[in-house]
Amino acid sequence: MEAHLPVFSDIEKAHQLIQPFVHRTPVLSSKSINRITGAELFFKCENFQKVGAFKYRGATNAVQSLCHADALKGVATHSSGNHAAALALAAKKRGIAAHVVMPENAPSVKIEAVKGYGANITFCEANLQAREKTLAKVIANTGATEIHPYNNFYVIAGQGTTAKELIEDTLHLNLILCPVGGGGLLSGTAISTKALLSSSKVIACEPAGADDAFRSFYGNEIVPSINPKTIADGLLTSLGQLNYQIIKKHVDAVVTVSETAIVAAMRMVWERMKIIIEPSSAVPLAAIIENKIDVKGQKVGIILSGGNVDLSKLPF
Amino acid sequence: MEAHLPVFSDIEKAHQLIQPFVHRTPVLSSKSINRITGAELFFKCENFQKVGAFKYRGATNAVQSLCHADALKGVATHSSGNHAAALALAAKKRGIAAHVVMPENAPSVKIEAVKGYGANITFCEANLQAREKTLAKVIANTGATEIHPYNNFYVIAGQGTTAKELIEDTLHLNLILCPVGGGGLLSGTAISTKALLSSSKVIACEPAGADDAFRSFYGNEIVPSINPKTIADGLLTSLGQLNYQIIKKHVDAVVTVSETAIVAAMRMVWERMKIIIEPSSAVPLAAIIENKIDVKGQKVGIILSGGNVDLSKLPF
Repeated sequence: MEAHLPVFSDIEKAHQLIQPFVHRTPVLSSKSINRITGAELFFKCENFQKVGAFKYRGATNAVQSLCHADALKGVATHSSGNHAAALALAAKKRGIAAHVVMPENAPSVKIEAVKGYGANITFCEANLQAREKTLAKVIANTGATEIHPYNNFYVIAGQGTTAKELIEDTLHLNLILCPVGGGGLLSGTAISTKALLSSSKVIACEPAGADDAFRSFYGNEIVPSINPKTIADGLLTSLGQLNYQIIKKHVDAVVTVSETAIVAAMRMVWERMKIIIEPSSAVPLAAIIENKIDVKGQKVGIILSGGNVDLSKLPF
Repeated sequence: MEAHLPVFSDIEKAHQLIQPFVHRTPVLSSKSINRITGAELFFKCENFQKVGAFKYRGATNAVQSLCHADALKGVATHSSGNHAAALALAAKKRGIAAHVVMPENAPSVKIEAVKGYGANITFCEANLQAREKTLAKVIANTGATEIHPYNNFYVIAGQGTTAKELIEDTLHLNLILCPVGGGGLLSGTAISTKALLSSSKVIACEPAGADDAFRSFYGNEIVPSINPKTIADGLLTSLGQLNYQIIKKHVDAVVTVSETAIVAAMRMVWERMKIIIEPSSAVPLAAIIENKIDVKGQKVGIILSGGNVDLSKLPF
């Protein structure tokens, strides 16, 4: 049986629902980066989104889409990253409980952020099995609805609003570049792009050290991410089932980039645009720098997924 | 004899003249920094200005204000900082020569930036006497007009456009905070504020380790900056004569801040706003963090002067 996949009207619905809660982030460009790359680049700045990442869109759509009875029982997830904070804030905005399972070795700054938004945290051992088992227990106890960080209909529809805004605010893009981890942002981006701008290609950009999406896309089944190694810590996870199906259908290509190019691209954005992006956000520009995509003379939309970096651990 | 000081109509004229060349930079705010400080803060983002600093406004006004005959002979300055790059680009835009005297120990990244804008560089020993002597020689040889980085009528008028835009784009500010080094930005800010928003106070913010403006303001004569020590490397210079007169007349107070507060404020802006500012830009927010200014419940304009930092030498 085929799973029920979101389509563009679900993204339009999501956009209406989340608009009161999320920032319509700006689209910025840089003459000097255009000169260096020979293209016209338009950067969609989700680093300026609440919680510092696009994740807040999907989490908000999932929380706001719950019926009243389910909402009363709260939401739950396991995550040590941006999704946990995003879900905690989205739940707080609706006035419902968020239950977050976090590994006991999660960075204290992340724990504090999630606590700051008022979530209930349950700690567990730092492995996937323990996380899933603990989450199942929390859900059994509370009746909360699990909101998966990317393999979730409403999350994908919410993330798709990013590319929708980018396309609405920019004229005639030829290409849209998007980083890929679990595929939530990429699948939403692909749906919006093919609906609004069918002539534009969608290219997924991935670290070579975490190339499961590349291998899944060209190998015709989901290849799990095993021992990924990359500075782009938002892109370590394997593709979700829903995400994979959408990506196979709507994405034109997947390219991989080196760690050196990721750091160089991140530095270029910091130095030339004076904005802070996390390494995952730098992956599409890295693909341009490394000549993995021909952008000469093209109008290129680039999604900057977030800006959450630990300033005491910079790669410069 | 009293020197001829710029007034608000000179800033209006400057604004018209430079508008085709400079960015109207955005005014940003941050809910989380507002929560922390108990005020409504409005940040005028000159870190997004061309050349990465407000300096481009004054340099452009000075270059565009030259009569044709003078312009043909070019412009000259000695500087190792943002003003050199700003003047070089401003001259390039008018198609005239820029002669820049730089100390031979200037950081190579700054030399490359000035070269990149097409300026003629003359190197000299790294002391003020050598810089002034070399500049005099260059001017004698070329007939170029000297454009001082802050003690210059047109430069002050150009810098005043920053606060003019901030006030135009924000409603009912009670306070405007501005960092002070040579006083170019501060004097322009004070003229615009007292003309457009006479009820608003202008408070200058200065590192305690380079407190010559503080001592000059309260001591009734220019006290030179001797052996200043601060991470805010844009604020090392002494006040200019023109700047001092305007500041005495229009500025309401000068406060000083610690180095710790400057780094904390810089980090707060990087982490919460996801934008890159240089240490000099962080000095006004540092004054708020350190309780040097009472901002509770106030609407406060803050000028972020620039975003040029060396990413390999961060204080975090």
